[in-house]
Amino acid sequence: MKTIAVTDPDDPRIEHFRDVQERDIVGRGGFIAEGKVVIDHLLASPRFAATSLLVARSRIAGVQERFAEFPQLGQQIPVYVAEQAVMDRIAGFAIHRGVLAHGQRLSEQAPLELGDGPILVAAGISNHDNMGSLFRNAAAFGVSAVLLDDTSCDPLYRKALRVSVGTVLSVPFFRAGNVRDIFDILSNAGFQCVALSPGGTVHLDEWQPADRVAVFFGSEGQGLPQYLLQSIDTLTIAMAPGLDSLNVSAAASITLHHIYTSKRP
Amino acid sequence: MKTIAVTDPDDPRIEHFRDVQERDIVGRGGFIAEGKVVIDHLLASPRFAATSLLVARSRIAGVQERFAEFPQLGQQIPVYVAEQAVMDRIAGFAIHRGVLAHGQRLSEQAPLELGDGPILVAAGISNHDNMGSLFRNAAAFGVSAVLLDDTSCDPLYRKALRVSVGTVLSVPFFRAGNVRDIFDILSNAGFQCVALSPGGTVHLDEWQPADRVAVFFGSEGQGLPQYLLQSIDTLTIAMAPGLDSLNVSAAASITLHHIYTSKRP
Repeated sequence: MKTIAVTDPDDPRIEHFRDVQERDIVGRGGFIAEGKVVIDHLLASPRFAATSLLVARSRIAGVQERFAEFPQLGQQIPVYVAEQAVMDRIAGFAIHRGVLAHGQRLSEQAPLELGDGPILVAAGISNHDNMGSLFRNAAAFGVSAVLLDDTSCDPLYRKALRVSVGTVLSVPFFRAGNVRDIFDILSNAGFQCVALSPGGTVHLDEWQPADRVAVFFGSEGQGLPQYLLQSIDTLTIAMAPGLDSLNVSAAASITLHHIYTSKRP
Repeated sequence: MKTIAVTDPDDPRIEHFRDVQERDIVGRGGFIAEGKVVIDHLLASPRFAATSLLVARSRIAGVQERFAEFPQLGQQIPVYVAEQAVMDRIAGFAIHRGVLAHGQRLSEQAPLELGDGPILVAAGISNHDNMGSLFRNAAAFGVSAVLLDDTSCDPLYRKALRVSVGTVLSVPFFRAGNVRDIFDILSNAGFQCVALSPGGTVHLDEWQPADRVAVFFGSEGQGLPQYLLQSIDTLTIAMAPGLDSLNVSAAASITLHHIYTSKRP
C-alpha cells in the first residue's frame, strides 16, 4: 500500500478532502466516501474509482486489510496518513470513522442499462437520507437499476452514500430526464410500470408483479405527477387509520420486498 | 389564542427554547417539538401537554388553525411570537419550520399498558433517525405499544420526534428494563415473542403471527442478545446476495406490514 504521511493540514496534496462539509453544499469534482464499508463498495465498483484516501494513523491496519483483496489498486491509489487531529482539521469536522476516500465516476456518459428489473424510479427525491435508504433497499432486493428524474438529489452526496452503506456505488443508477421521459423509456423497453401512491387503487399485497417491472416513487410532499398516476396502475399499502403516508423509503422497503418474494421460487 | 410578542432574544420567558440544539445534548426538562404536524400530535395527545409555543410572526395563521380544534388549549398555552431573526437567535440555528413547542409528559410514572398488540420492542436502538422511523412505522401499522430497553435512546429527542412526524406522541411507549425483563413481561402477558435477525430461521413471508404478538428489533451493530435469540422464534427477511442486513427501520416496515396484512379481514 502506497502510504504518504501528511503532517500539515494545508498540504496541497490532500485538497480533495479539505472542508468536506462545505463542499457537499457548493459542489465539487468527484465525491467523498466515508468509512470502511463504503470504501469496500468503491474499490469493488466497475463504475467508480478511488483517486486517493485519507486515513487516520490508527486506522491503517483496517485499510490495509481492505486493499488485500485489490492488490493492484493498493499500488495505484495514494493513501495519505495523518494523525486524527490533523485529519479533523483538514476535513473541517471530527471524522469518527477515520477513513475518507475521494472517488470519481469512470465515465460521465455511461449508457443506460436497465437489466431485467425490478427498476426503482426516484422522482423528486430531494432528501439525502431518503435517497441513501432507497439504494440500500434497492440493493437488498435485487434492483437492477435506479432511474432518477432531474429533480432528485445526487446519490453521490456524502450523506446519501453513507446512509446507503455504499450501495450507491454498486447498484447502477442513471439520470434519465423528467418523469414522462422515464415512463416512455421504460414502457418502450417493455417494463410494467406501477406507482406507489397513498391514493393508489390496487392493494400491494394483492398485486402480482410482472417479470420485468418498474416502480415509481415520488416525494412525500409533492407526490407523483397526476398524468402519470392516471396512465399507470397505482399501488397502495394498507395502513392503520390516522396517518396519511409512510416515509418513501419505508414504502420502498415493503414494495421491493413484495416483488422480491413474489419472484422467489 | 394567547399570543405574547417577544423582541428580545434574552427574554427569560422563552428560556425553554434557548439553544435548542445544545439542550438536545445536555438534557433538559420536557422536550421540544418542531413543525405543525408534530405539534398537532402534541395538542391531541392524552399523555403529553404543550407548555408553551414559540412561533415566527409569518406562521401565526397556521398555528391559529391548529388551535381551532382545541379551543380550551388556546386559552391556556402561551404562544410567544417573534420575528424569524429573533427566533433563530433564541433557538441557536435557523428554524425553517417557524414553529416550536415545549412539551412535557403528563405523568412520569404512567403504568405499562400493552393493548392487544402488535408490540414493537426496541433493544439498543441508539440512532435517533432509526428511533423516529420505528415509531412512524409503528403508527402506520397499528402497533399498540413500543417497549424500549434501557440502552435505547430517547424518542422525545427533537430529531427522533421530527423523523417520527409526531407519532412518538401518539403511540404509547414505555421503558421496561433490559431485554430479559421485557421478554418476561411480554411472555407472562401471553404475547408470542419473535425477533428479527439476519440469521433468523423462519422466513418472514412464511410466518403467521399470533393474535397477540411482540417483535424484538436490535441495533445494526450489536444485534439482539444470544440468550434471547436462543429462546424465541427468529425471523429473517429474504434478500439478494451481497448485503448482510437491512436498516432496522426497513426491517420494521416490512415486518409490521406483514403482521398488519396477515390480520386484515
